[in-house]
Amino acid sequence: MSKPIYVLSGPNLNLLGTREPEIYGRETLDDVRAACERRAGALSRTIVFRQTNHEGQLIDWVQEARVEASALVINPAGYGHTSIALLDALKTLAIPIVECHLSNPAAREAFRRHTYVSLAATGVVSGFGVKSYELAVEAAAAASA
Amino acid sequence: MSKPIYVLSGPNLNLLGTREPEIYGRETLDDVRAACERRAGALSRTIVFRQTNHEGQLIDWVQEARVEASALVINPAGYGHTSIALLDALKTLAIPIVECHLSNPAAREAFRRHTYVSLAATGVVSGFGVKSYELAVEAAAAASA
Amino acid sequence: MSKPIYVLSGPNLNLLGTREPEIYGRETLDDVRAACERRAGALSRTIVFRQTNHEGQLIDWVQEARVEASALVINPAGYGHTSIALLDALKTLAIPIVECHLSNPAAREAFRRHTYVSLAATGVVSGFGVKSYELAVEAAAAASA
Amino acid sequence: MSKPIYVLSGPNLNLLGTREPEIYGRETLDDVRAACERRAGALSRTIVFRQTNHEGQLIDWVQEARVEASALVINPAGYGHTSIALLDALKTLAIPIVECHLSNPAAREAFRRHTYVSLAATGVVSGFGVKSYELAVEAAAAASA
Amino acid sequence: MSKPIYVLSGPNLNLLGTREPEIYGRETLDDVRAACERRAGALSRTIVFRQTNHEGQLIDWVQEARVEASALVINPAGYGHTSIALLDALKTLAIPIVECHLSNPAAREAFRRHTYVSLAATGVVSGFGVKSYELAVEAAAAASA
Amino acid sequence: MSKPIYVLSGPNLNLLGTREPEIYGRETLDDVRAACERRAGALSRTIVFRQTNHEGQLIDWVQEARVEASALVINPAGYGHTSIALLDALKTLAIPIVECHLSNPAAREAFRRHTYVSLAATGVVSGFGVKSYELAVEAAAAASA
Amino acid sequence: MSKPIYVLSGPNLNLLGTREPEIYGRETLDDVRAACERRAGALSRTIVFRQTNHEGQLIDWVQEARVEASALVINPAGYGHTSIALLDALKTLAIPIVECHLSNPAAREAFRRHTYVSLAATGVVSGFGVKSYELAVEAAAAASA
Amino acid sequence: MSKPIYVLSGPNLNLLGTREPEIYGRETLDDVRAACERRAGALSRTIVFRQTNHEGQLIDWVQEARVEASALVINPAGYGHTSIALLDALKTLAIPIVECHLSNPAAREAFRRHTYVSLAATGVVSGFGVKSYELAVEAAAAASA
Amino acid sequence: MSKPIYVLSGPNLNLLGTREPEIYGRETLDDVRAACERRAGALSRTIVFRQTNHEGQLIDWVQEARVEASALVINPAGYGHTSIALLDALKTLAIPIVECHLSNPAAREAFRRHTYVSLAATGVVSGFGVKSYELAVEAAAAASA
Amino acid sequence: MSKPIYVLSGPNLNLLGTREPEIYGRETLDDVRAACERRAGALSRTIVFRQTNHEGQLIDWVQEARVEASALVINPAGYGHTSIALLDALKTLAIPIVECHLSNPAAREAFRRHTYVSLAATGVVSGFGVKSYELAVEAAAAASA
Amino acid sequence: MSKPIYVLSGPNLNLLGTREPEIYGRETLDDVRAACERRAGALSRTIVFRQTNHEGQLIDWVQEARVEASALVINPAGYGHTSIALLDALKTLAIPIVECHLSNPAAREAFRRHTYVSLAATGVVSGFGVKSYELAVEAAAAASA
Amino acid sequence: MSKPIYVLSGPNLNLLGTREPEIYGRETLDDVRAACERRAGALSRTIVFRQTNHEGQLIDWVQEARVEASALVINPAGYGHTSIALLDALKTLAIPIVECHLSNPAAREAFRRHTYVSLAATGVVSGFGVKSYELAVEAAAAASA
Repeated sequence: MSKPIYVLSGPNLNLLGTREPEIYGRETLDDVRAACERRAGALSRTIVFRQTNHEGQLIDWVQEARVEASALVINPAGYGHTSIALLDALKTLAIPIVECHLSNPAAREAFRRHTYVSLAATGVVSGFGVKSYELAVEAAAAASA
Repeated sequence: MSKPIYVLSGPNLNLLGTREPEIYGRETLDDVRAACERRAGALSRTIVFRQTNHEGQLIDWVQEARVEASALVINPAGYGHTSIALLDALKTLAIPIVECHLSNPAAREAFRRHTYVSLAATGVVSGFGVKSYELAVEAAAAASA
Repeated sequence: MSKPIYVLSGPNLNLLGTREPEIYGRETLDDVRAACERRAGALSRTIVFRQTNHEGQLIDWVQEARVEASALVINPAGYGHTSIALLDALKTLAIPIVECHLSNPAAREAFRRHTYVSLAATGVVSGFGVKSYELAVEAAAAASA
Repeated sequence: MSKPIYVLSGPNLNLLGTREPEIYGRETLDDVRAACERRAGALSRTIVFRQTNHEGQLIDWVQEARVEASALVINPAGYGHTSIALLDALKTLAIPIVECHLSNPAAREAFRRHTYVSLAATGVVSGFGVKSYELAVEAAAAASA
Repeated sequence: MSKPIYVLSGPNLNLLGTREPEIYGRETLDDVRAACERRAGALSRTIVFRQTNHEGQLIDWVQEARVEASALVINPAGYGHTSIALLDALKTLAIPIVECHLSNPAAREAFRRHTYVSLAATGVVSGFGVKSYELAVEAAAAASA
Repeated sequence: MSKPIYVLSGPNLNLLGTREPEIYGRETLDDVRAACERRAGALSRTIVFRQTNHEGQLIDWVQEARVEASALVINPAGYGHTSIALLDALKTLAIPIVECHLSNPAAREAFRRHTYVSLAATGVVSGFGVKSYELAVEAAAAASA
Repeated sequence: MSKPIYVLSGPNLNLLGTREPEIYGRETLDDVRAACERRAGALSRTIVFRQTNHEGQLIDWVQEARVEASALVINPAGYGHTSIALLDALKTLAIPIVECHLSNPAAREAFRRHTYVSLAATGVVSGFGVKSYELAVEAAAAASA
Repeated sequence: MSKPIYVLSGPNLNLLGTREPEIYGRETLDDVRAACERRAGALSRTIVFRQTNHEGQLIDWVQEARVEASALVINPAGYGHTSIALLDALKTLAIPIVECHLSNPAAREAFRRHTYVSLAATGVVSGFGVKSYELAVEAAAAASA
Repeated sequence: MSKPIYVLSGPNLNLLGTREPEIYGRETLDDVRAACERRAGALSRTIVFRQTNHEGQLIDWVQEARVEASALVINPAGYGHTSIALLDALKTLAIPIVECHLSNPAAREAFRRHTYVSLAATGVVSGFGVKSYELAVEAAAAASA
Repeated sequence: MSKPIYVLSGPNLNLLGTREPEIYGRETLDDVRAACERRAGALSRTIVFRQTNHEGQLIDWVQEARVEASALVINPAGYGHTSIALLDALKTLAIPIVECHLSNPAAREAFRRHTYVSLAATGVVSGFGVKSYELAVEAAAAASA
Repeated sequence: MSKPIYVLSGPNLNLLGTREPEIYGRETLDDVRAACERRAGALSRTIVFRQTNHEGQLIDWVQEARVEASALVINPAGYGHTSIALLDALKTLAIPIVECHLSNPAAREAFRRHTYVSLAATGVVSGFGVKSYELAVEAAAAASA
Repeated sequence: MSKPIYVLSGPNLNLLGTREPEIYGRETLDDVRAACERRAGALSRTIVFRQTNHEGQLIDWVQEARVEASALVINPAGYGHTSIALLDALKTLAIPIVECHLSNPAAREAFRRHTYVSLAATGVVSGFGVKSYELAVEAAAAASA
């Protein structure tokens, strides 16, 4: 049986459902986890689902995924735009990487349009709220089939 | 019964499967159409699937989609980066718009990193080859459910 | 009797009155034509009034105006910001050219602040909705009197 | 009876008719005043017509127009490109503002292409010499009818 | 016998000989065609010679050249500076591509100094008027010998 | 007894309370003066309080403050972003200089984010409406104690 | 009784009094805490005062302040210039936010002139050493009165 | 006998000798006037010597110089870097214009490296303190001989 | 006896020898430690050698080095390009600082060409793999002899 | 009989055939000279063919060509991108100047895309290896016929 | 008796009088030398006057001037804009340095507006043709008196 | 026995020990040569040590090193920042190249932060004065062992 898909979320996503709902919607991170598990299950896959506000922790988990995961879905939130250290961690992975965002960065402030993460990603899904995670899990599953 | 999802493809996508296969893969535009129809069918939706090399034609079809479609999936190819006229057409639509790319623009030349289309799009799916279209159709279907 | 004033409109202006009315107002392109004809008539001039979504068509008409028109009023819409080919066509004309916009580009997105068309234009009228066209026709008539 | 339209002109316009005639023409500021009065009269409106070389004076007059005018036509000349203070004064007005230039800034030096004034203006008329003022007065009259 | 060399010309080149003769000279596009045919004939090659004002048409012809031509000479005119769609079409070709300009872009406006076409071209010949086409045909012939 | 603190306000601040109240609040410049006097009095200090729309006048007053004041509070308004002449005047002062703004420039247009004044200022207080002036007076008093 | 004002300090501020005293002065962070408590006490308010070198810790505390604080004073030090994650955390707060700096960033290196924090802040106090904190506490108290 | 040479000085030069003497030296504006008169006298010329802190006043004097002067020496100080209105005034002059600075702008802040005045000037003398004015007067005299 | 030289390594360097070996070589961080100890021993010096993925931890160690070390060698990896907080920590040190990189940043992506760390460093050694650390230790030892 | 065509080559072209053959091909500078002589001979012209690594020498030869040559072909190599002194020398020539490159600069590093030489050149031939020189000689011959 | 003033001229100035006379005038470099000698003689000083097209030669002479000259006048021509090596040579001098240009760089191409030389110069004289050299010699003499 | 290591120094380094000693120290180029010879000797290697102020000479020597050297150490001084011709020469070498600087460019003017040389270098040593050369020789020796 294949290794799990790691689904990592970065800073402030623990507040999902309470923060700027007109942009991010009212569903919580637990709703996201449930949706990811359903989609993974339908594809006969499992997930590991985690969130942190700490850049170093995110890097540690990405390094763990090198060994333990079959694919990685990552919503880097604010760190995606600024962290070359996170990019370097991602570039050590041989597995598919799917970047995922709840909102469409192109429709927001200029400094959100570029992510270092996308330089290491196989592909990107953004703009569909919780649905972004679901589709990202399917994309990750397909790329690591 | 709901209106169809329009799936529009821009310049050079008629050559899919023959052009730079290391970037775009070997599947043809007919394969893409078939995959989109399968995914739409599984969601009890229908699609209208077209391709053109002409910017004006693409704009005409987007205007048609204002009236005839429930959602729009668009792979604008080269015109996505340069056409404000296409953006203006898209901004007249009240239905969900999903931008879709075969490859991940972030991993290519700098001039491919920005698209005007994304300023009008609900969300973006890119980097998964034919799978990008499939996921885009699902995202479009969900957003117009 | 003098040749007519060509009044050309670019992409998406066929949707006038339905698209972003808070910016462009509720009058249609037929209303614009009627207003232009009234103003031209009051000045004992005639107009040729056309719209297209196709950049190549717009260029063909500008080339036609070289021979057939006494002056040109052009609302290039989205192509004004991006089309060097249109600029080149305009630069072949010896007659007055008046650029015209419904809204004031300076009050919109940064990418709408510059038009190539203005590099070839005698002058510009923008921001007054349908009135922009009327004043542009008068300016064109005066410059080709 | 409605309040007058203020027509304000900025630095060096007192030299009109003597300065770079190949760009600005040979008509004087008195000719401009006369043309504005004729056009306003034809529309059953009156004007207040003033010129100054002093930025502070221009701001004082704009503040006066808040109370005394029904609309404002302003040719800010050199201050249009550099004066945020003038922009701030204009933003306090609730009446229509028409920016007006004798020549077409787009055809001159790069530093003349942007004006702060246009960020507060309803619209712009430029490039037609004295005729720019006339059309600006009509636009201002129409917008404050 | 080898396939023909395609010689494609973009927008406004149909006006050659009438447009800004101090830059482009007084020879017409028919003169260019004749010169190209002479040079090709001297090298025992044939040409297909076409012009259009439509970007989509130019892309269609470039796609046709993938199959029908031994080499491509292209003067993209205004589209060379702005069309990523045209670049993408050119990148699908396995045959030599020679970019050709009548005037030297480096001596003109800044926005004419860069062409997307040159990113796909084998080489460039510019600045020699009709002679540019002749030398481009020889370069194309040599590269596809 | 120590010299007074000069509190200078630049263009359009005479309109305070009437201009864009959602940004600047409804208190008038007289309210500001009263609040400054109260705070200065509580600290056993006096103030000189003035406003002008004229850049040259502001410079004259700053030069006067070199001799007559113990500290300077300045809200340069629009001139803060554009006036190197004002900066040069401020750099001739040996007394503390406190820059003060009613609103937070960082939350407004990009051209308001930089002020030349801050290059000569000891410190800045911005964003608290009338309270900005009060705190600025205290900062100025403390720095010149 | 109202909730406390959170006063958070970022990296290297634990070294206050030892680091570059010509810029930051010789007072320590304990002196700052005492001054803040005095000012808060005089206004019948309380404070929570903390410092960390860890970006993730700062974000955790900002999230805590959403629930536990009536207002936030934050000296983000180096993270203010680089952390979009911190900005995102601040944007989830409904309480007043006062950015505070010991020195005036405008007088230092160019990369210190912009902070992401100021995009979420009500206002800013900078340049007055320990006094900056004091005034920030008063501003925070007033804004949350 | 020829008309006088106008020698105009802009903002803050009235403080010469007291302001940043390590950059500008200890001589006063009266010393400058005396040195200019001596040099002019040695060349059998006269001067008109004036200073103002007001941009509008400087423009009025430049306009006066159009009629009354044989040549113009101008030290625009801070207005040289920011005033397009001053540039426009200078461009109306048919007489030689010599820009003059006490210090060498290239050795100071980046925003002092460019002056609009130099776009209208015959030449520039900078960096030699009072000697700059003397040499400028000689250059002006020679150019208007 | 002198204090030890601190040798600190930032994010992802724990993966050395497994990550992009064509750029970084196949030696591990333990090999680096051994090489540093050998070189230090030959110079009669000792080292403290540590690695972390956490920016805050790196800052804590740099602060510790203020007191405990005679010199600092730091390979900041990804944080070197983005961390002003780390720069601020380094600027509090009075001991020599040697920046060190395994690869030559100039030969990689543009965003790796600048490090904030180099603004505080005595010097830099980069591009020689493990040898970079060795030479950095010698440089640090010499500078703190 | 007409004067010779000068064919000058800049730095490192003496290594032609040994340096980066995948870009520049395997032919040597002697092969280039022979090809140029053949082409010139076929056109009844002669050439002077030289190479140097020294910028000053190249300038001396360009100055010599003012008097001795009927036309100039120049491959400035690295100096083309950086030498304003060489541009100034070229601008003193009244004869045709043909810039020539072995490879297509547009397909290489960004800093190779601009040459100062092209600002003075009649036209450019690049990208065809030795053939570039041949065509450049013909273009030079035609332009000086 | 004092050491001579070195007067050095850079590339292409040997062609003075023949090159672009509408910009540089018709006087030759020998005329310049004579004028410099006259002015130096009137001030009881001597000059050493040299010209070269070679950057290295110019640097050698500047190094010689460190020992042999009392002041340096340098017209670096094209090398002024590009040579950091020349700047470094100039920065080794303890004597006054006067930069001098025949024409006013501000009125020419953008790439002529900045010179590295001015970063090391005491002052600049430009725009007065041969007179620029004369005034520069006087400025140099005065500064080294 | 292996070929020597070439150690080349660029412009103004002949003045070492006399020029800006606070930046570069008081040791002369002969001291540098001696230190390099000692370090090379300790590693059983020899060096060829040269300096020149002439860019062309530097290029000639780099070309010589292609054949005669086992490795190259180069301190390009001012030419490192500006010479693409030197970069091109370096790119023809198959041996290790070590760039070396006496001071740390990152701590100096912005225009010293980038060198073309580093694009061709194996690695860089900078900031340690004469010690930079020593360590560079060791790095070169190790890379060519």
